[in-house]
Amino acid sequence: MRNILRGEVKNASLEQLNALCGEIREEIFRTVSACGGHLSSNLGTVELTVALHRTFDFPKDKIVFDVGHQCYTHKLLSGRAKLFHTLRKEGGISGFPKREESEYDCYGTGHAGTAISAALGIAKARDIKGEDFEVVALVGDGSFNNGLVYEALNSLSVLNTRVLIVLNDNGMSISPTVGSTHEVLETMKRGDRDVRLFERYGLRYRGVVNGNDLGQLLPALEEAKELLKEGSVLLHVATKKGQGYPFSENAPLETHGFSPKPAAKEYASALGEELSALAGRDGRIVAVTAAMTDSLGLRPFFEKYPERAFDVGICEEHASVLCAALAAEGMKPYYAVYSTFLQRCFDEIIHDVCGQDLPVTFCVDRAGVTGEDGETHQGVFDLSYLSMIPNLTIGVPKNIAEFRAMLRASASFGHPLAIRYPRSGKEGTASPLEIGKFELLHSTMSDIIILAAGERCIGLAEDVRERLLREGMDVSLVSARFVKPLDAVFLDAIAEKYVVTLEDNVLSGGFGDAVARFLRGSGKQVFSFGLRDAFIPHGEAASLAAKYGLDGEKIFALIKELHARG
Amino acid sequence: MRNILRGEVKNASLEQLNALCGEIREEIFRTVSACGGHLSSNLGTVELTVALHRTFDFPKDKIVFDVGHQCYTHKLLSGRAKLFHTLRKEGGISGFPKREESEYDCYGTGHAGTAISAALGIAKARDIKGEDFEVVALVGDGSFNNGLVYEALNSLSVLNTRVLIVLNDNGMSISPTVGSTHEVLETMKRGDRDVRLFERYGLRYRGVVNGNDLGQLLPALEEAKELLKEGSVLLHVATKKGQGYPFSENAPLETHGFSPKPAAKEYASALGEELSALAGRDGRIVAVTAAMTDSLGLRPFFEKYPERAFDVGICEEHASVLCAALAAEGMKPYYAVYSTFLQRCFDEIIHDVCGQDLPVTFCVDRAGVTGEDGETHQGVFDLSYLSMIPNLTIGVPKNIAEFRAMLRASASFGHPLAIRYPRSGKEGTASPLEIGKFELLHSTMSDIIILAAGERCIGLAEDVRERLLREGMDVSLVSARFVKPLDAVFLDAIAEKYVVTLEDNVLSGGFGDAVARFLRGSGKQVFSFGLRDAFIPHGEAASLAAKYGLDGEKIFALIKELHARG
Repeated sequence: MRNILRGEVKNASLEQLNALCGEIREEIFRTVSACGGHLSSNLGTVELTVALHRTFDFPKDKIVFDVGHQCYTHKLLSGRAKLFHTLRKEGGISGFPKREESEYDCYGTGHAGTAISAALGIAKARDIKGEDFEVVALVGDGSFNNGLVYEALNSLSVLNTRVLIVLNDNGMSISPTVGSTHEVLETMKRGDRDVRLFERYGLRYRGVVNGNDLGQLLPALEEAKELLKEGSVLLHVATKKGQGYPFSENAPLETHGFSPKPAAKEYASALGEELSALAGRDGRIVAVTAAMTDSLGLRPFFEKYPERAFDVGICEEHASVLCAALAAEGMKPYYAVYSTFLQRCFDEIIHDVCGQDLPVTFCVDRAGVTGEDGETHQGVFDLSYLSMIPNLTIGVPKNIAEFRAMLRASASFGHPLAIRYPRSGKEGTASPLEIGKFELLHSTMSDIIILAAGERCIGLAEDVRERLLREGMDVSLVSARFVKPLDAVFLDAIAEKYVVTLEDNVLSGGFGDAVARFLRGSGKQVFSFGLRDAFIPHGEAASLAAKYGLDGEKIFALIKELHARG
Repeated sequence: MRNILRGEVKNASLEQLNALCGEIREEIFRTVSACGGHLSSNLGTVELTVALHRTFDFPKDKIVFDVGHQCYTHKLLSGRAKLFHTLRKEGGISGFPKREESEYDCYGTGHAGTAISAALGIAKARDIKGEDFEVVALVGDGSFNNGLVYEALNSLSVLNTRVLIVLNDNGMSISPTVGSTHEVLETMKRGDRDVRLFERYGLRYRGVVNGNDLGQLLPALEEAKELLKEGSVLLHVATKKGQGYPFSENAPLETHGFSPKPAAKEYASALGEELSALAGRDGRIVAVTAAMTDSLGLRPFFEKYPERAFDVGICEEHASVLCAALAAEGMKPYYAVYSTFLQRCFDEIIHDVCGQDLPVTFCVDRAGVTGEDGETHQGVFDLSYLSMIPNLTIGVPKNIAEFRAMLRASASFGHPLAIRYPRSGKEGTASPLEIGKFELLHSTMSDIIILAAGERCIGLAEDVRERLLREGMDVSLVSARFVKPLDAVFLDAIAEKYVVTLEDNVLSGGFGDAVARFLRGSGKQVFSFGLRDAFIPHGEAASLAAKYGLDGEKIFALIKELHARG
């Protein structure tokens, strides 16, 4: 796209601004169609972002985007239009705000609910330093379900500073927003001004403004900016997710995230199928999600068993405690969640679920290097932060059929369980499963054995093995179906001299560390491949995995060398 | 104490109940004086708990205690009076609710904000199973700052069930409660009925009732129980922390937690002293706490630099994001927090602080086995969940003097840093410090070297060494001042054949795993002592540490054997 000059937004007429919005909308649609990305959230906030750039003086003034999947217009307006075609590509611009990318991105995001806290920190730093600028937090209504928002609002009076919170209310949080706060916001949009919802925090409330109408937005923002001189302000803006593209307006959920590649078979659909089938036979089974019913595959379950299906909104912590308590009373809860968002309930997994040894099953989707969403969305820590928790069993299926088998086995398992899987893979077939046992896939006479955790690593190992076979070498291969507890019987019986572990997780505290700890003193040599100690940016998943440590070439080279060593 | 029969509470006159409350209060005072424990919170809730036991039919009805440090009267009323003298002792009864201890404890707690979520889970399980009982959540006003409470309240309408929330409002959260919610509650206690604070969640609100007056409490609870038939209810009860003991009423903070042992020198006081001194020279330094100003030693800082000191309430997540943003704008934030509560902001440490490589310093107090508070308060996971996070440096001082040196060094350190320390230790002396470098304490000609992380482990190693010396053996000893990054130069230069690591942390993903990973292929044999994969209950810290894996006897025996091996 052509470079949009700063002065253009500042000096344009309303008509020109509207034309610019059209141009931006087209560019977003074109780029997301090619590169993937967040479509409907960005289409919905074009006018709002243009109005914010018109009203405020970025980057002197600061804007924090909650989650950040509505920052494309901001990127186009802050000198990144010519790079926009590299969106989410390795080395290109990120789909989320990033401090190192531009001085216009003062604070990086990706997870929900952080923007008001961050805006308060920035504003307070300003006050202490005696500087003079404004701070805006742009927060979706979905994030207003998240507890972090209330922790931040509660401390407004303690921090005694000034921020403008723009509540971008489109009624969606990927899934439609749920719960009491949402219901109050809907009432407010219908005309009932329940301002005490916000004013009790010491905020001035203004709204509801049509956030897709510059004619309403510009004066409302001017007024908010004026009020901001005296204290914090919340401006309630109603936008339409997908605005401007009827198919996206009508299907905001389906067009929230957009992936240009034809997807392989998704683990999520297997989750929905299996869990629905299990629930038909077992009235104790309930399903819980934090605002991601569809992307986790739970739609069929929610439709079939609405009385046992709960979307609690973007509330990962609450979802965990709720599951623990359901289990304490004899139910069998399944909490489906992306690996990166599971981090949010780390304490509750320890304190509520595993500390009480309650049979909650965590279905951990999008594990491993996820790719285009970058640092904040990689699922590369879970094997570590889950392995260290007592009482937790961790399954890593080799394919979708084995994932189904694990789900079936979980139904009669009486302890905390996490099943960890990538977004997509092969259906394949599964052999009979015993919880806590590895599966030997290839047994050879070589002195080398690979223990691989999960579908991607097994795929990598199979590729390496094929290359070895072509060169007249071989290697034993094991699917480490359960990385916790380790299969002690199997490990004790390993005849090979060299043990190679593979995991799409950071090395620190992961599967390789556990195997090496187990085998210390056994005389075996352990070599571990996994991801090195770094945040992995956006790009193509397999390419990133190789670059950050899970490299088929290097695995092949090592095994070749071990063969030579003998 | 004599056993209190269930019928006694059910059938007693008001006068007899008041006499019972006096008896309970004396027993709590006597026991806490001897065993340590939570005094003022339990003294404040005697009448409220008696009234709940009179009104509801426990254990058929269920009660969930938020945090749980107000459950002593409940324990006395539910068949545990004769065991009460074993409070917090190894093998005795826990200071917190525990499912395995009694059928009256339906849900275990220890951390703040979980009770409403848990009550909803229990109530929903009841509905699904078609059972008939009532569920009560007893929640302090301090927890109403915590985001988890709002996540739970928001989902009341989604879950469509019925619970009674008793808001035990004493204006304290260890430190006095802060923030907007607190201010609204105070207004309500003065007579302004801002019921929409709660009613917007679909709760019926009743109150404010004097929670230390059975004459008010009993009819209010009867009414609430009646209302509960139709939907969820919030009963707002005002209690006085420390009620009945003037010195405790007047000093609820000082008598919140009560420790019978004379305390050794506390790291917390060094934190307050050093940070205040640093802040005098560096205007960028700010201190943040989540409702624990005093127990973390920050009082002097808060008094001297009120404009740079923030108690944000029991909001660990918000505290982390706030610090990240302050750092993003050039400030130098120090976030002091107990190890176990730091778990609450695991995602924010990754996503906000380390993901952006911002110079926030986490002062992680109460690390290692903490003892009498049991499972929910041990600080035994931090080395693992922190070591796996990229960009984070982790310091473990050998004594308080070295802790001071680390704080001074941190002031010019431009990246995320965690300093991890036990509650108390020796002042000692420190040699010059370089971030990322080990310190060699004793160099010997033996073939064995101990790498010990932190004061307790060094103390253990020194004891082992003295015993070895008495038997004519020796061992080299290193203080692993920084467990991340590891001191690569030092590790590469180790001449000894056997490397023994010590840490008061779970083995999975901890210091020993990191050293072993580094030394793989070096020909060294690594032996790691740390805590085994289990939740550690309450008891005496050193005894528990030995029992769970950090046992001087075993370390001594191993080293003796290695000497024999040669």
